[in-house]
Amino acid sequence: MRCCDELGAVSDESGRLTRTFHSPAMRRANRLVGSWMRAAGLEVREDAAFNLLGRWPGTRRAAKTLLLGSHLDTVRDAGKYDGPLGVLVALAAVKHLKERGVTLPFHVEIAGFSDEEGVRYQTTYLGSRALAGTLTRADLSRVGGNGIERARRPRGEFLAYAEVHIEQGPVLEQRSLPVGVVNTIAGQSRLRVEFRGEAGHAGTTPMHLRHDALCGAAELALAAERCGVLATVGKLSVEPGASNVIPGCVELTLDVRHQRDARRCAAVRALQTKARDIARRRGLRLTWTTVQETDAVSCDPKLSRLFARCVAARGHEVLTLPSGAGHDAAALSAVCPVAMLFVRCKGGISHNPAESVKTADVAVAIGVLADFIQSLASRHG
Amino acid sequence: MRCCDELGAVSDESGRLTRTFHSPAMRRANRLVGSWMRAAGLEVREDAAFNLLGRWPGTRRAAKTLLLGSHLDTVRDAGKYDGPLGVLVALAAVKHLKERGVTLPFHVEIAGFSDEEGVRYQTTYLGSRALAGTLTRADLSRVGGNGIERARRPRGEFLAYAEVHIEQGPVLEQRSLPVGVVNTIAGQSRLRVEFRGEAGHAGTTPMHLRHDALCGAAELALAAERCGVLATVGKLSVEPGASNVIPGCVELTLDVRHQRDARRCAAVRALQTKARDIARRRGLRLTWTTVQETDAVSCDPKLSRLFARCVAARGHEVLTLPSGAGHDAAALSAVCPVAMLFVRCKGGISHNPAESVKTADVAVAIGVLADFIQSLASRHG
Repeated sequence: MRCCDELGAVSDESGRLTRTFHSPAMRRANRLVGSWMRAAGLEVREDAAFNLLGRWPGTRRAAKTLLLGSHLDTVRDAGKYDGPLGVLVALAAVKHLKERGVTLPFHVEIAGFSDEEGVRYQTTYLGSRALAGTLTRADLSRVGGNGIERARRPRGEFLAYAEVHIEQGPVLEQRSLPVGVVNTIAGQSRLRVEFRGEAGHAGTTPMHLRHDALCGAAELALAAERCGVLATVGKLSVEPGASNVIPGCVELTLDVRHQRDARRCAAVRALQTKARDIARRRGLRLTWTTVQETDAVSCDPKLSRLFARCVAARGHEVLTLPSGAGHDAAALSAVCPVAMLFVRCKGGISHNPAESVKTADVAVAIGVLADFIQSLASRHG
Repeated sequence: MRCCDELGAVSDESGRLTRTFHSPAMRRANRLVGSWMRAAGLEVREDAAFNLLGRWPGTRRAAKTLLLGSHLDTVRDAGKYDGPLGVLVALAAVKHLKERGVTLPFHVEIAGFSDEEGVRYQTTYLGSRALAGTLTRADLSRVGGNGIERARRPRGEFLAYAEVHIEQGPVLEQRSLPVGVVNTIAGQSRLRVEFRGEAGHAGTTPMHLRHDALCGAAELALAAERCGVLATVGKLSVEPGASNVIPGCVELTLDVRHQRDARRCAAVRALQTKARDIARRRGLRLTWTTVQETDAVSCDPKLSRLFARCVAARGHEVLTLPSGAGHDAAALSAVCPVAMLFVRCKGGISHNPAESVKTADVAVAIGVLADFIQSLASRHG
């Protein structure tokens, strides 16, 4: 918890927490967490995608690697647990095992991924997808060819990926449980939408002759709110953006999520149809760009059952729940089985400085993860 | 027209025309237009509010001053005629009279006002209101106490103010007329509205538990569009402004205009009620700030008739029309009678680089203004 506080002060903006891909604060965060990893006896390096990696070699050199971790980047004006908690819980669990003299038949590697939130380039999982080798040409051109694809790891290297993360929702709090086992990560569509109309004088252009891009965007934002799945316009910018000028161009982001891919895709199609209607009716030019499509991901049933047994062994009721948020585990699911453990957070609030977790809940998560690693070792022993 | 082109290249932004109050480009614009004034034999100075003033003394030292002109500042990504044309037409008319050896029983002063559009401080007429002595304490504190109130001129100094400006609307073009005489300048309300909700994770906060500030703002923008008078949301910003975060706070500007003050005020009240409804229904905090209220202004009937006679004398049909846009004439109406002449502009487009006027129409305006000055002189002779 002290480490979370210390790391929460490493920011690109004064007075609030913001760390984006490969920013000065991210480089400082990697140095700080790297120093803690080194103090725990891990072999530390940063890969070509700026992911921080701390390795605990197993007893068998040819063994696979159990990957643990989460991300170290944040949204703008973020809380200090979304991401970093998972990295630091993994580190605490590994320290705990090492201090007890445990040795493992597989390697363990803790990753602090460099980009999960996607604030800088409007894409997600840059860090974990670089590791998984699933970056697209479009991702690379967006980032501007700095060689991050060289972070790709050999096929079959990873035994599994296990991630601890705050729930970012209200379910565990409602059920009075410290942790929960994730069964699915919702799929997500990210879109960039532009309405281009005609700028003009706000005092002389009659209302019926306007092509106001902002009014078109406003209709779409309200349609998204009513589309039946989780849909959010999080970013919106107006050009030219003066109080006495009719908006000539508006660009906005649209984030659509659901556990069932078919429902999500249907909602996106319905919103695109709506946007075309709006554009036609208002005489606007519409540009509709799919930035990212991530299908829903199922967590590995065996690993999830193992997490569940570890939770039950510590005397807690086992709750299995889906994740509405995307996680690095979704990216890693392309190359190995994945599992996730959620930690209760206050009010379900995240992406906000008010993010809060209880020390006792974090202790449960550390214990469960340590037990999980040992159970996995005994299976592979 | 060549001067308009040359002045249109003096900008704070490369590739597009933007000149705001007391910016580097405004200082360069004042130097350039000042040099043209000096070449025409005027006494040139810049006052404490950064208005450029070029004076042609009359034959009687104790006489009043006929003020001509318009503004030299622009909106963002502006056209090159809105404002500057009025200053340069006044200069051309004065040059024409001086070259013909005309002397006048009153002084003439051409003003290039420093702030009509209000882009920098979200207020209007800073320059002309400083001259008229009608700046409020709020204006001064917004500008940050740089002494612009010292630009105030003695009561009773001005005989009249006459302004030439592009129409910024489609009426003259529809009627195939080069110029028109303005009878009223619409009143205007400028408001700043903030909706404050709660930021949160776009993937985990159920739709019915959200307090999305942008959806509230979208409802208000669409209500403004339907409110029955000219109403525009020209500027809107979203905090924190990331694609996967529910908007926690939105600030927007609202510009409401009408020739009848009662209808404008009723529309503003209706929109405020609507905004309160939205805020209550959505659990948002509303901040509603009146930035500026300008009542409709009537042009002086005698001066308008004089303009009309000058237009008719040059063989053109006289069209009298209202102005939907505000003008420096509204500010000067506090201290002297005002009159305005509109010049036809292509497609009624303004506040846009596509602003365009015909050379022949500008020649008509110069001739009419010169005749107007001489007619006024013969009345005062």
